[in-house]
Amino acid sequence: MRNTFGTNLTVTLFGESHGPEIGCVLDGLAPGLPVDEAKIANLLRLRRPAGATATARVEPDPFRIVSGVWQGRTTGAPLCILIPNTEQKSGDYVNLKNTPRPGHADYTAYVKYRGYADPRGGGHFSGRLTAPLTAAAGIVLPALEAAGVRVGTRLARCAGVADRPFADLSADLAAISDAVFPVLDPARGEEMRSAILAAARDGDSVGGILETVVCGLPAGLGEPWFDTVEGQLSHMLFSIPAVKGVEFGAGFALADLRGSEAGDPIAADGGRIVTTANHNGGVNGGLTNAMPLVFRTVVKPTPTIRKPCQTVDLATGQAAFVVAGGRHDPCIAPRAAIVQTAATALVVYDLLLGARRV
Amino acid sequence: MRNTFGTNLTVTLFGESHGPEIGCVLDGLAPGLPVDEAKIANLLRLRRPAGATATARVEPDPFRIVSGVWQGRTTGAPLCILIPNTEQKSGDYVNLKNTPRPGHADYTAYVKYRGYADPRGGGHFSGRLTAPLTAAAGIVLPALEAAGVRVGTRLARCAGVADRPFADLSADLAAISDAVFPVLDPARGEEMRSAILAAARDGDSVGGILETVVCGLPAGLGEPWFDTVEGQLSHMLFSIPAVKGVEFGAGFALADLRGSEAGDPIAADGGRIVTTANHNGGVNGGLTNAMPLVFRTVVKPTPTIRKPCQTVDLATGQAAFVVAGGRHDPCIAPRAAIVQTAATALVVYDLLLGARRV
Amino acid sequence: MRNTFGTNLTVTLFGESHGPEIGCVLDGLAPGLPVDEAKIANLLRLRRPAGATATARVEPDPFRIVSGVWQGRTTGAPLCILIPNTEQKSGDYVNLKNTPRPGHADYTAYVKYRGYADPRGGGHFSGRLTAPLTAAAGIVLPALEAAGVRVGTRLARCAGVADRPFADLSADLAAISDAVFPVLDPARGEEMRSAILAAARDGDSVGGILETVVCGLPAGLGEPWFDTVEGQLSHMLFSIPAVKGVEFGAGFALADLRGSEAGDPIAADGGRIVTTANHNGGVNGGLTNAMPLVFRTVVKPTPTIRKPCQTVDLATGQAAFVVAGGRHDPCIAPRAAIVQTAATALVVYDLLLGARRV
Amino acid sequence: MRNTFGTNLTVTLFGESHGPEIGCVLDGLAPGLPVDEAKIANLLRLRRPAGATATARVEPDPFRIVSGVWQGRTTGAPLCILIPNTEQKSGDYVNLKNTPRPGHADYTAYVKYRGYADPRGGGHFSGRLTAPLTAAAGIVLPALEAAGVRVGTRLARCAGVADRPFADLSADLAAISDAVFPVLDPARGEEMRSAILAAARDGDSVGGILETVVCGLPAGLGEPWFDTVEGQLSHMLFSIPAVKGVEFGAGFALADLRGSEAGDPIAADGGRIVTTANHNGGVNGGLTNAMPLVFRTVVKPTPTIRKPCQTVDLATGQAAFVVAGGRHDPCIAPRAAIVQTAATALVVYDLLLGARRV
Repeated sequence: MRNTFGTNLTVTLFGESHGPEIGCVLDGLAPGLPVDEAKIANLLRLRRPAGATATARVEPDPFRIVSGVWQGRTTGAPLCILIPNTEQKSGDYVNLKNTPRPGHADYTAYVKYRGYADPRGGGHFSGRLTAPLTAAAGIVLPALEAAGVRVGTRLARCAGVADRPFADLSADLAAISDAVFPVLDPARGEEMRSAILAAARDGDSVGGILETVVCGLPAGLGEPWFDTVEGQLSHMLFSIPAVKGVEFGAGFALADLRGSEAGDPIAADGGRIVTTANHNGGVNGGLTNAMPLVFRTVVKPTPTIRKPCQTVDLATGQAAFVVAGGRHDPCIAPRAAIVQTAATALVVYDLLLGARRV
Repeated sequence: MRNTFGTNLTVTLFGESHGPEIGCVLDGLAPGLPVDEAKIANLLRLRRPAGATATARVEPDPFRIVSGVWQGRTTGAPLCILIPNTEQKSGDYVNLKNTPRPGHADYTAYVKYRGYADPRGGGHFSGRLTAPLTAAAGIVLPALEAAGVRVGTRLARCAGVADRPFADLSADLAAISDAVFPVLDPARGEEMRSAILAAARDGDSVGGILETVVCGLPAGLGEPWFDTVEGQLSHMLFSIPAVKGVEFGAGFALADLRGSEAGDPIAADGGRIVTTANHNGGVNGGLTNAMPLVFRTVVKPTPTIRKPCQTVDLATGQAAFVVAGGRHDPCIAPRAAIVQTAATALVVYDLLLGARRV
Repeated sequence: MRNTFGTNLTVTLFGESHGPEIGCVLDGLAPGLPVDEAKIANLLRLRRPAGATATARVEPDPFRIVSGVWQGRTTGAPLCILIPNTEQKSGDYVNLKNTPRPGHADYTAYVKYRGYADPRGGGHFSGRLTAPLTAAAGIVLPALEAAGVRVGTRLARCAGVADRPFADLSADLAAISDAVFPVLDPARGEEMRSAILAAARDGDSVGGILETVVCGLPAGLGEPWFDTVEGQLSHMLFSIPAVKGVEFGAGFALADLRGSEAGDPIAADGGRIVTTANHNGGVNGGLTNAMPLVFRTVVKPTPTIRKPCQTVDLATGQAAFVVAGGRHDPCIAPRAAIVQTAATALVVYDLLLGARRV
Repeated sequence: MRNTFGTNLTVTLFGESHGPEIGCVLDGLAPGLPVDEAKIANLLRLRRPAGATATARVEPDPFRIVSGVWQGRTTGAPLCILIPNTEQKSGDYVNLKNTPRPGHADYTAYVKYRGYADPRGGGHFSGRLTAPLTAAAGIVLPALEAAGVRVGTRLARCAGVADRPFADLSADLAAISDAVFPVLDPARGEEMRSAILAAARDGDSVGGILETVVCGLPAGLGEPWFDTVEGQLSHMLFSIPAVKGVEFGAGFALADLRGSEAGDPIAADGGRIVTTANHNGGVNGGLTNAMPLVFRTVVKPTPTIRKPCQTVDLATGQAAFVVAGGRHDPCIAPRAAIVQTAATALVVYDLLLGARRV
């Protein structure tokens, strides 16, 4: 199902980087959810480029909810959010049509859509489409909070610098909940920023690792085959541009552990069943086990750099170079954090709907 | 969609570890595909435990195709494959019902299915269900080969020992195509086996990393949002029991690279557009770019070990221990290799169907 | 989604008329439902040909449930039912491959499956596939009854003879619940049987109208657009071979009524909101309104008749005749009644699951 | 799938009668289709109320395509069409919230959405939502015509007056292709209009029957089980407000025919396989047979009439009356004709996409 995702809650994305408006349709929402437009505006603020480590400051994204809300609450009908594209400098990109940028969708979209795809700014493939996705999460995050579920994402590693591990999850989630550059250790954050700026000075870019935690989930969400929690989440997460990997719990480090080291002993804590370690990241057999859901994604260094990149002119078949015009983020990982939180929130709300928990 | 996966080709799994039969239904197959039962039998052979590094030798899986085939070819109607469960020692497991095994689905299934799940041998969550999935691939792999597409998986790392990297893809794929323990460097394979046996002697288990390569895909498969190639594949791959992470191309290593290092320059090679590196693993913007599709998964050390594991008796709430009875694989990664090839083949065939290429 | 139907409960059909086994997979069932094999056997009995008005008596359908049930209750995992094809006289049909029978799927299947479809007895298109569909209903009908929902279908018209209208719904549903020839007025039933036998003596066949009633549904099931109750039911009902039309409530008669005549006034009956007429058949705006859900389908006279039918030999392009060999039902409407009840029960259970009512 | 319909082409509807904008998202369109905005405008014109037999004249629907089109052609990305609601007199309806109108979704929506549905003008259930559906068809109808497929709908019966039968399909389809009141026999059309006006003078309304014909389809579209052509079309058609029945070919009249009368003999016509009658309406075994696809729907008399209708005040539980304020169509069947053509076009395009024919 192309540009629609979800089982109980579906989100449909539409729009292009340089079209008049982009947007999404959320369908399956419970009726009666309070809609907090300031919450949506704040999420869009967290997603926007922020100063020196990102592209030059742009204005806030205005947005309009054109359906599915009445008297401040969801009606249960499809909720459509529209975001106008206010800055459209199409001229910057039209000349790229024949010289696909390495690491972008230019060439693959050209083939798939037989030359008809809108090439301006990546068209429908643009990271700009994560704005309506983020706005959509502004509808469900308050509902998750009301159900005792909290979602947060931090920059666990960037440009070779690692943040400290999560410690007190509750306090750590609170600390990053409204951060434009979400790290747990401010000093490490400063090191990351310096490394990003150093790359920017070189006309280059850097990558990073994002770690998401979801607390408060009940046990038993997900399905044994195919619609595992890991499968549903990863399906969504690879839509975040630049994400090239995802791991749950101890992830790839499990390859070098023994079973006796990687186990998560089960214990009773009051009346609750818990595990005393969390190598499985809160998922057993594809289902949540009520421990914190923990996963990491890798965000590749953005391929849009000032250095010339080798490509081919599709019209002539000759070698050519592309150079990114304008200003670009030297690292998109910090901005991708709120997108990852948003994407996770949509999947988690869907899982809870399926289990009749929201 | 619970136990059904796929868009153009769907696979539906059913059965339990200790039920009379397990099976799958494949729907959407092109009519007229030759059905080679020996091919299916061989895939099931590769999946079976094989000697010292796995559980004690068992008999081959018999199987029956009960629909969708006439006169040796697919008809286009749903194809159902049934595999009887010949060895059922239910007694081994019934006592586990109240003492969930750490790292397994016992507890999460207990919650999800309110105590009604079949607890014998993991029930519907059993890795045994990968047998019909593997058999299903026996239908589509010959069709992929006829379309010039080859799929192979090797054990890239196991018990701390790394195989050599892929070199000549064509020769390397041929070398592992019929291997029970698929590694490129036999000496490294021996080291892995030794390490597995050492863990087994300790009553313990080890994990590993599987690497899959798909050659011969056209450009433009996949979708920009949600149904990216990475998203569809990962959704499927997390159904392979014990898989806890997936990464494409350079994967998590991209976190520490700069954009100028991680780029995949585009070049013309004869009339064909290629990239001269493959950090993106054959996928740009969620779509195939006609370079080899490359990804790795991590397989956790199996939690079924001879050492006692701490758990809770759900009936009494008291601490308890579970000990794996019978014989168990000290490492399931080698057997999971053919399952990963099978799972990949099903997704790839679906993608090619959608693009009208098979 | 080809041979799979449903949103919350899915049913997947597989098999061919002359293959070894036919069957279905039910997925999404609540765990813990009691499974009554005698109930399934009885539904299959009602579906079987019964004497003079149908084909010659055949043996009961044996069936096996091979997954999804443990200790007499559903586990919540996919439930697969298999029914062996015991009588397979393939020779009867092979010669039909090149001379498609008018009114059957022979020609259209030939085109769709490029000549690879199994032509024996209609292959996958055979009405025989309604046996597993009927068996599947044996799982959900007891759950519906437990939820206060009753489903029944009667032969409202056959061979030009009309049954009396429904009067006391509860008594009428009880009266037809176990009838092989379900009519409300036995005298009219005898007239129908006579008319069927008269047609049979002429080597001909007759059609009929089936009316289904569902009592006990809550208000609010269904969706406003696309997944209306009428849309979901009709989608399923046209899978019953020979059904060519469906109408809800007053149906086509509404064309000649005025709004003031066709209205369903709303009233309070105790604490309950009811309508004092039911021209809308229990559905308003695509949603149930808690009044009885009432609809009728038309079942065409079976095209399999002893009289020769004009066709074309696909191999030579020459005009030809086909004559139905063996014995055939002169009217399939009576047997289709239980199939319609079964199909309805599956859709209704799905709707109730979606509304969290079962 | 709630407000989304389709397999290869999906359409998602959103909006409410009195919200700021309504619209739809079309996904799965082939890239490169010419987009003719005048065609869309003309379809919307045909759907609008037209003079004496409908509500008072309103202004044309403006519309905007905000995505999926570049340089006048579809890009293959989701195409979103927005239509502003220019006339919103919310006050007219707010007082209806507690007194549900008989025959409308007011009560059922109230229950389903727990009192949160937008009650103004029917909210999301409003027939107004057929405007974006009709606009969507403006994208695919030219593509169907380019593939040799023509779709048309006429008013076969209205207020007890029958139009003449179809004769020369090609000429008849041409005659009704741009008609606001699509009948084949103008004299019968005048009788219908008179009868509609007579009902209007009485403060009452009338119903009708719409007949749709699709010419030029290839054989083999559709699926044997569940996704039959009849099943897919009827699923969509019941979304047209007021449709309560659908019949294919000879439809309900088949109940009284014998098999020898209802058969469609197969013949060769040049190199083409045809049937010399069309009682099956172009569908055998759920698949198209390349004969004209023919079906009829019944449109109930609109329940919105000037005469007072009996209802219940949900706040007090007391009997009450509702009277339709403002002006209303005394018969919506003529306007529903273009909606039925549009709905059919979307399903047919989906079927052709699946068969790789567009």
